[in-house]
Amino acid sequence: MKKRVAVLAGDGIGKEVTNAATAVLDAIGRRFHHEFEWVHGLLGGDALDQAGHPIPEETIRKCEESDAILLGAIGGPKWDHYPKELRPEKGLLQLRKHFELSVNLRPVQAYKTLLSSSPLKEEVAEGVDLVFVRELTGGLYFGEPSFHTDEEAVDTLVYKREEIERVVRFAFELAKLRKKKVSSVDKANVLESSRLWRKIVEEIAAEFPDVEYEHMLVDSTSMKLITSPASFDVIVTENMFGDILSDEASVICGSLGMLPSASLRADGFGLYEPVHGSAPDIAGQNKANPLGAILSGAMMLRTAFGMNQEADAIEEAVKKVLEAGFGTGEFKTQGGKVLTTTEMTEKVINEIECEL
Amino acid sequence: MKKRVAVLAGDGIGKEVTNAATAVLDAIGRRFHHEFEWVHGLLGGDALDQAGHPIPEETIRKCEESDAILLGAIGGPKWDHYPKELRPEKGLLQLRKHFELSVNLRPVQAYKTLLSSSPLKEEVAEGVDLVFVRELTGGLYFGEPSFHTDEEAVDTLVYKREEIERVVRFAFELAKLRKKKVSSVDKANVLESSRLWRKIVEEIAAEFPDVEYEHMLVDSTSMKLITSPASFDVIVTENMFGDILSDEASVICGSLGMLPSASLRADGFGLYEPVHGSAPDIAGQNKANPLGAILSGAMMLRTAFGMNQEADAIEEAVKKVLEAGFGTGEFKTQGGKVLTTTEMTEKVINEIECEL
Ligand SMILES: CC(C)[C@H](C(=O)O)[C@@H](O)C(=O)O
Ligand SMILES: CC(C)[C@H](C(=O)O)[C@@H](O)C(=O)O
Repeated sequence: MKKRVAVLAGDGIGKEVTNAATAVLDAIGRRFHHEFEWVHGLLGGDALDQAGHPIPEETIRKCEESDAILLGAIGGPKWDHYPKELRPEKGLLQLRKHFELSVNLRPVQAYKTLLSSSPLKEEVAEGVDLVFVRELTGGLYFGEPSFHTDEEAVDTLVYKREEIERVVRFAFELAKLRKKKVSSVDKANVLESSRLWRKIVEEIAAEFPDVEYEHMLVDSTSMKLITSPASFDVIVTENMFGDILSDEASVICGSLGMLPSASLRADGFGLYEPVHGSAPDIAGQNKANPLGAILSGAMMLRTAFGMNQEADAIEEAVKKVLEAGFGTGEFKTQGGKVLTTTEMTEKVINEIECEL
Repeated sequence: MKKRVAVLAGDGIGKEVTNAATAVLDAIGRRFHHEFEWVHGLLGGDALDQAGHPIPEETIRKCEESDAILLGAIGGPKWDHYPKELRPEKGLLQLRKHFELSVNLRPVQAYKTLLSSSPLKEEVAEGVDLVFVRELTGGLYFGEPSFHTDEEAVDTLVYKREEIERVVRFAFELAKLRKKKVSSVDKANVLESSRLWRKIVEEIAAEFPDVEYEHMLVDSTSMKLITSPASFDVIVTENMFGDILSDEASVICGSLGMLPSASLRADGFGLYEPVHGSAPDIAGQNKANPLGAILSGAMMLRTAFGMNQEADAIEEAVKKVLEAGFGTGEFKTQGGKVLTTTEMTEKVINEIECEL
């Protein structure tokens, strides 16, 4: 197959990790006879510096002409004092809105070799295999009115039925392919939007009699993610709760730098990016962990292009490298061997080529 | 001194734990020559069953005539299907609003003997000594419009300058008496209310040159509370973020059942309650851990009545009982000796009387 992918490296370590991902994907192309065309576009602070806007028209166009988007990371203290409309994050939010990327997927999995660097006791983090399904284009992020004066401030949490239905149905479909359990998270004892959310969850649950489900309050969920994370399968929630809880979940296995994510439109078009940030403190030093971006590449192959075997090949290669005890600066496996970004990328590529 | 305290036991284990707290406070009264008058009032599901409303007029009046409020816990599945206006939680929210309890304090401290039951590695949880200062009567909890139809739902996050100023100033005052560090949590890269929040924090920080402060995003904070909780001192944030993050923080030391809280009005009048819930599954079985309520009593003595020595006496008694290896059903110390609610209460009272 021939696929065109928009690569938005963004800021900080974004360039290093997307370079790693495309190098690994090229190796997959060689092994499985696919051709990937990489179309590079500006986003975030880098776009602001070079083109005066966090998401230039040209970037949008490049994404529109591609089969998927691969993103590095955006933001950094350098742009924190720009006016709201020009901040790097705004670029990302506009991208999500423009392409209607309403479902955000974030799998979190415990890797045995990484448990030693988890802040949780190994027996607590062991066996974690959950996925967040976060609504990404509604709620407090986009509701109007939204303004502040010097005396008061207002933000608005709005949801339409179809926005909730879409993401909740996605979660149940996904659970069917996994451990068949959905935890829906809301704050129905306080929020009106949560009451509508809960009602719709019950309606949709009725369409999936073989999937078990539960309603959980957001505050209890923030506790249970720490006390018994292995009890979860699919967690579905609204935009802001998803932002907070999925970040919380991302550190429980000691593997933040390895986590991939996907943000999907209803027709399957999507954006793939590592969960970690732009880490300006280590940018340009060849120290960043490229595995989050590499595994986002695998997620793209599977979800956007239906290339399951190819995605498996990447995931297996990563697992082997971890099991061999390799890590990068910011994370360590039990083996404790520290590689640079490019060395780690080479290791993964070697594993992929070994299987030839 | 003579003090009148409104005791709102509420639901589930609320009665058992407030009984424990008042028994301990009576022991303090005997030792230090104070007299506490306990005025019992209905709240929550219990009030709904007995008086048809989650917070009857009479309860409000009793609280108005008292020097402080001691609360047990409210809610339970039994009342989950009541209409919104009649749910137990509504009683609590109305109480907060009626008495303008706008500052919620939640200290979290690592007890050495409890670290073995923390989900975190002992070296991560060790040394934690932080306090949440949560805004409690604004934001998404009370903003209008707030409604849902079958097709859409709206909640509104509103803050007025003075609401933010009050809680932020409280946090800086508190930090002055502690480790002199304030972490202010917001989502300024998305929310307008967070931008006003951040601005006000900077204004107020200028009044406290000896207190160090930082702005943190709510999503990063949910990670850092797990990866390096001991790095925090005072954490100040708005109502909903505070709800989620303070619950997250409450489990990191393995001591949820021990945590006290205070909700204060500007003039110092306040409500004191354990952080734990009503635990209907163990209600009436003499199994509940009464230490959260007992330590809330200590917080009341110190904060409401200026009885510092008396509060110290309770806190020291609790520490001794824990160090001696005692726990209750739902939590274990390293010693592993399991007591009933009443036995645990007796142990604490014995320690207080020993010092006579
Ligand atoms: C950068 C920021 C606007 C964004 C969000 O809040 O959605 C980020 O935290 C994320 O989770 O992707
Ligand atoms: C019971 C509920 C309304 C309440 C809240 O959300 O404030 C509780 O979770 C708390 O934190 O005291």
